[in-house]
Amino acid sequence: MPSGIREERDLANKLHQYGFAVIRSPASGGATKMPRPDIIAGSKKRRKWFAFEVKTTRLKSIHISKDSFHQLIDFSKIFGCYAVFALKFKQQNKFWLFIKPIDLIPSKKGNYNISLKEALLKGMDFSELIGEGQQTKLS
Amino acid sequence: MPSGIREERDLANKLHQYGFAVIRSPASGGATKMPRPDIIAGSKKRRKWFAFEVKTTRLKSIHISKDSFHQLIDFSKIFGCYAVFALKFKQQNKFWLFIKPIDLIPSKKGNYNISLKEALLKGMDFSELIGEGQQTKLS
Repeated sequence: MPSGIREERDLANKLHQYGFAVIRSPASGGATKMPRPDIIAGSKKRRKWFAFEVKTTRLKSIHISKDSFHQLIDFSKIFGCYAVFALKFKQQNKFWLFIKPIDLIPSKKGNYNISLKEALLKGMDFSELIGEGQQTKLS
Repeated sequence: MPSGIREERDLANKLHQYGFAVIRSPASGGATKMPRPDIIAGSKKRRKWFAFEVKTTRLKSIHISKDSFHQLIDFSKIFGCYAVFALKFKQQNKFWLFIKPIDLIPSKKGNYNISLKEALLKGMDFSELIGEGQQTKLS
């Protein structure tokens, strides 16, 4: 199983454990060109609905293409949920960092790069994302 | 491509054309046992969110297992969306019929069977489902 898929499944399972209804998108591209996040999760009880784009890396920063960025935003606007980038820097830490689109700064070409340091500053951890407990100091 | 998958894709495309954000579940079972509908579709603008279980047949009635029925209901309750069975009777008509769980009557064993006749009486067509236009006379 490719590592990205394993990480995606790990996040899906975690959301499920915390009471979310979760659906993962097919791994393959499919025939259509609909914008499509990696994971949708929702909880009526928590009043939280998310569309996730999952990005993992063994490097020091994560690249998000312009297309990937806008597809997630488009989907979320239409659906009516939060757009969230779920990041995992595998060399540096074991936990997920969640970034809102508004916290990403585009390059001149309109793509996005985010370092672990920025992600730790701007991101949320899992409990903040789902609205549980106090904000955890990440750095 | 198996016929069921083709039909699922057809419904996903149709929802997309009508302005819904759509995600299809992976065809394969996956490693986890999360309840998982075939399609999730949502539109903030229309204030409609659906989880679909897609069932097609060349026979005169459609079988829905107890598990399949309850999984769709469980998912939808947790997520906070409508549970809908999307039925296509391929021999008799070319359009989709949409049935709410409440309109299905369980057998003694807790499974469900619905004939085309019942589906025409109790079901919604696509425009009714998404809340457009007048109710169409189906039979």
